[in-house]
Amino acid sequence: MTSKIKGSRTERELVQLFQNTGNWSAIRVAGSGLTKNPNPDVLAGNGKRYLALECKATKKTSKHIYEEDVIQIITFSNKFGAEPWFAIKFNRKPWLFLKPEQLNKTKSSNSSINLRLAEEIGLTFERLIEGGELCKTQ
Amino acid sequence: MTSKIKGSRTERELVQLFQNTGNWSAIRVAGSGLTKNPNPDVLAGNGKRYLALECKATKKTSKHIYEEDVIQIITFSNKFGAEPWFAIKFNRKPWLFLKPEQLNKTKSSNSSINLRLAEEIGLTFERLIEGGELCKTQ
Repeated sequence: MTSKIKGSRTERELVQLFQNTGNWSAIRVAGSGLTKNPNPDVLAGNGKRYLALECKATKKTSKHIYEEDVIQIITFSNKFGAEPWFAIKFNRKPWLFLKPEQLNKTKSSNSSINLRLAEEIGLTFERLIEGGELCKTQ
Repeated sequence: MTSKIKGSRTERELVQLFQNTGNWSAIRVAGSGLTKNPNPDVLAGNGKRYLALECKATKKTSKHIYEEDVIQIITFSNKFGAEPWFAIKFNRKPWLFLKPEQLNKTKSSNSSINLRLAEEIGLTFERLIEGGELCKTQ
């Protein structure tokens, strides 16, 4: 199975998580890694919040993230009007969600995220989609 | 050229129109006609407004629109939080934009849009994206 097909499959899983909530809609972006425009992999909305998600899956315990990916998700989100998020799927673990500024900076200008940090500071899917409600009650 | 490829090309043209404005971002939805979820063809946003667009192109002067397409774009838009629009491209004419309720009802529960009606009541791209600004100054 090519990494592109695997990527599409994990994105579809994430889209389905949103659809299953009943009050979120989510879509996969066509050719997100191919076009010259800075596009996320998945977009989700519930009429109050809009999430732009860059999806990463790995069988290892750490995932390298290029500076370009970080810039793209922020650029797109600022213009479209969405919250930028990295959605990380480690093998046999649930999805975890981190903001671009929460990624580990490497010595180069790239970033990385490891399982330990993701589990410590990342949001679970349930926490991610509850975020808007928490903000509203404050 | 298959209708699917032609459809993708016209959707890309529409996405590019939004990108060229400088303050809108737009994306094509992956597998919009294939998945069981009610998805639009294109999503656009500028941080204030979110547009869900169902794209139709034709070489004829009238385009038949299935009831299912109308229901899908409204269902998606209500949940995601977007304005539902039909984007119609007649041959050698600029894109025109109509709301679902502006389509002509046919004798069945389907709809249609013809060139004359589209030119009479449809919005040009410039009017479509100015809509938000007009609303704000009222």
